[in-house]
Amino acid sequence: MTPPPSSPTDADWGPPERAQVALLADVGAAPKPGNVDRDHDHPDLRLGHFLAGGVGAGVGLRAAAVGDPVGAAFERAVAGMSRGAGTNTQFGSLLLLVPLVRAAAASDRDLSPDGAAAVVASTTVADAAAFYRAFDHVDVAVPDPPEGIVDLDVRRGAEAIPTLEARGVTLSDVFSRTTADSNATEWTTGFRRTFETAAGIVDDDGPLTDRVARAFLDRLATDEDTLIRTVHGAAVATEVRKRAAAARGDSDAVAALDADLLDRGINPGATADLVTAATFVALERGVSV
Amino acid sequence: MTPPPSSPTDADWGPPERAQVALLADVGAAPKPGNVDRDHDHPDLRLGHFLAGGVGAGVGLRAAAVGDPVGAAFERAVAGMSRGAGTNTQFGSLLLLVPLVRAAAASDRDLSPDGAAAVVASTTVADAAAFYRAFDHVDVAVPDPPEGIVDLDVRRGAEAIPTLEARGVTLSDVFSRTTADSNATEWTTGFRRTFETAAGIVDDDGPLTDRVARAFLDRLATDEDTLIRTVHGAAVATEVRKRAAAARGDSDAVAALDADLLDRGINPGATADLVTAATFVALERGVSV
Repeated sequence: MTPPPSSPTDADWGPPERAQVALLADVGAAPKPGNVDRDHDHPDLRLGHFLAGGVGAGVGLRAAAVGDPVGAAFERAVAGMSRGAGTNTQFGSLLLLVPLVRAAAASDRDLSPDGAAAVVASTTVADAAAFYRAFDHVDVAVPDPPEGIVDLDVRRGAEAIPTLEARGVTLSDVFSRTTADSNATEWTTGFRRTFETAAGIVDDDGPLTDRVARAFLDRLATDEDTLIRTVHGAAVATEVRKRAAAARGDSDAVAALDADLLDRGINPGATADLVTAATFVALERGVSV
Repeated sequence: MTPPPSSPTDADWGPPERAQVALLADVGAAPKPGNVDRDHDHPDLRLGHFLAGGVGAGVGLRAAAVGDPVGAAFERAVAGMSRGAGTNTQFGSLLLLVPLVRAAAASDRDLSPDGAAAVVASTTVADAAAFYRAFDHVDVAVPDPPEGIVDLDVRRGAEAIPTLEARGVTLSDVFSRTTADSNATEWTTGFRRTFETAAGIVDDDGPLTDRVARAFLDRLATDEDTLIRTVHGAAVATEVRKRAAAARGDSDAVAALDADLLDRGINPGATADLVTAATFVALERGVSV
C-alpha cells in the first residue's frame, strides 16, 4: 500500500530554508565590492555557481536542523555545495550557518550568542574529523597554521584525523587554536559580530538584498577581511578596509572600489561569510525578502 | 540511542536539486526582456522573492522525486514557494517541473516526451483536487475558462473539488480542457516545446545563465506568450513576439524591448515557465552551471 502523500506543513519553511535564502541573497545583492554579486561575475566563478552551491548545501542544512552532529551536517552541506557548484562557493558561510541553524532548530531553540556558544561547546572529536574531511571535497584558501600544529593543518584533510583522535581535539578546540581567521573568531566568541551585524540588518529598511549590500559595506569598512589577508597580505587587507570606510555613502566611490578590487582579483570573502550568517539571523528575527 | 549521522550520498544531488537550479537560473540570467532577471526587479516583485520562492519549492520537488502523487507534490511546492516568497513567483514553472522531476526520478526513469506523457496519463481525480487547492495558496493570472465549464474555473480553488469528484475529472483532463495556456499545452503534448528548447540549450555554448537568456529570447520570438495574452490581450502578445523576433542578435534592440516591456508592466511569464522547464531538462542532460 502506498503511504499517504505529505501535505504542506510549517516544517516546510524553517531555519534550513532561511539559511539557503541567506546564501542566495549574498549573491543577489549589489554592490558588494570585489564579490561575485548581482552586478558581476569573476572570470572563473559566476553567479550560477553560487546559486547551484546554495541549492546543493540544503541537504546538510536540513541535517543540522534535525539533529545530525554539527561536523557531519557541515561535511554534507559542503559535499552538496561542491556537487552543485563544482567548486568552492560557500564553504566559509556554511561553517557559520550550520551551528546557527542547529541553535535555531534545537528543541531548546536559542538563536543567541549563548545558544550558539552552547552548540560550539557541545562539539566532539568526531565533529572535528568531519570538518577535516570536508576539506577533501573542495579547495579552500586558509592561513598557515600556527607553529607546532602543522600536523593539524586543515589542508591535510582526512589525513589529519588520526592525530585529532590521538590528541582528543574537538571541533571547538580546532577553532580555539586557529588565528587570523574571521570564521574561527565567530566560533570562539559566541558569534558576536554575526549577531551585531544581524541587528543592523533588522534595524535597516527596504528589500533584503539592499540591506545585505549595506551591511556588507559597513562590515568591510570595520574589519580587515581575513581572506584578503590570507591571499594578498595584511597591507592589502588594511587598504581595502580604509577605502571601504571612505567610500561609505558615496556610490561613485563604492563603484570605483568595486572595479578596482575586481581588476586586482581581490575578493572579500570572509566579510561575505559573516554577512551571510547575519542575514540568516535577521531572517529568523522576521526580516522578509 | 542516537541514529548515525547521514553521510553525503549521490542522492544529495538529483532531479529536485537540478529543478531548483533551473528556477534560480531563470532569474540569474539576463537580459530576459520584461521579466524580473539579474538586471532588474519589478516595482513589487524582486529577485529576492524568486530566490526565496525557489528555495521554498524544494520540499515539493523532493516529494515528487520520492513518489508523492503529482498533484500533492505540486501543491506542496506551491505552498513552500508562497511561504518563502510571500507571493506567486513560480507557480507556472512548478506546474511543468513537478511532472518532469517525477519522470526523471521514477524507478523506470524516462525523461522524454513519452515518459512525461506517461506521468500525465497517470494522474487522478485526487491530483486534480490538489491542483485546485494550490490556487488557494497564491493569486495566479489565468485565462477565463471555456464556455460550459465555469464551475471548474481554477480560480474557484478548493470550492471546485466536489464538482471534479462528481464528474471524475483527472488532472490530465483539466489540462485537456484548458485552452490558451502555454503550460496546459505542454501537459497535453508530451512537453514538446520544453524538450525542443532543452535541445537548443544543450547545443549552445557558455555559462548556463547565458544559454538561458538566449533560449528565452528565441522562445519569445517564436510563440506568443500566453500570460501576456491573458493579461494584456492578443494584440500585445503578437506585438511582443514580432519585436522579439526583430531584436534577435541586436543587443540594443533587446535592451530597448526590455525597457519598453518593463515600462508598460508587460511580463512574458509563460515563456519564462517554459524555458525554466527546458533548463531543468538540459541540466539532466549534463549541462553544467
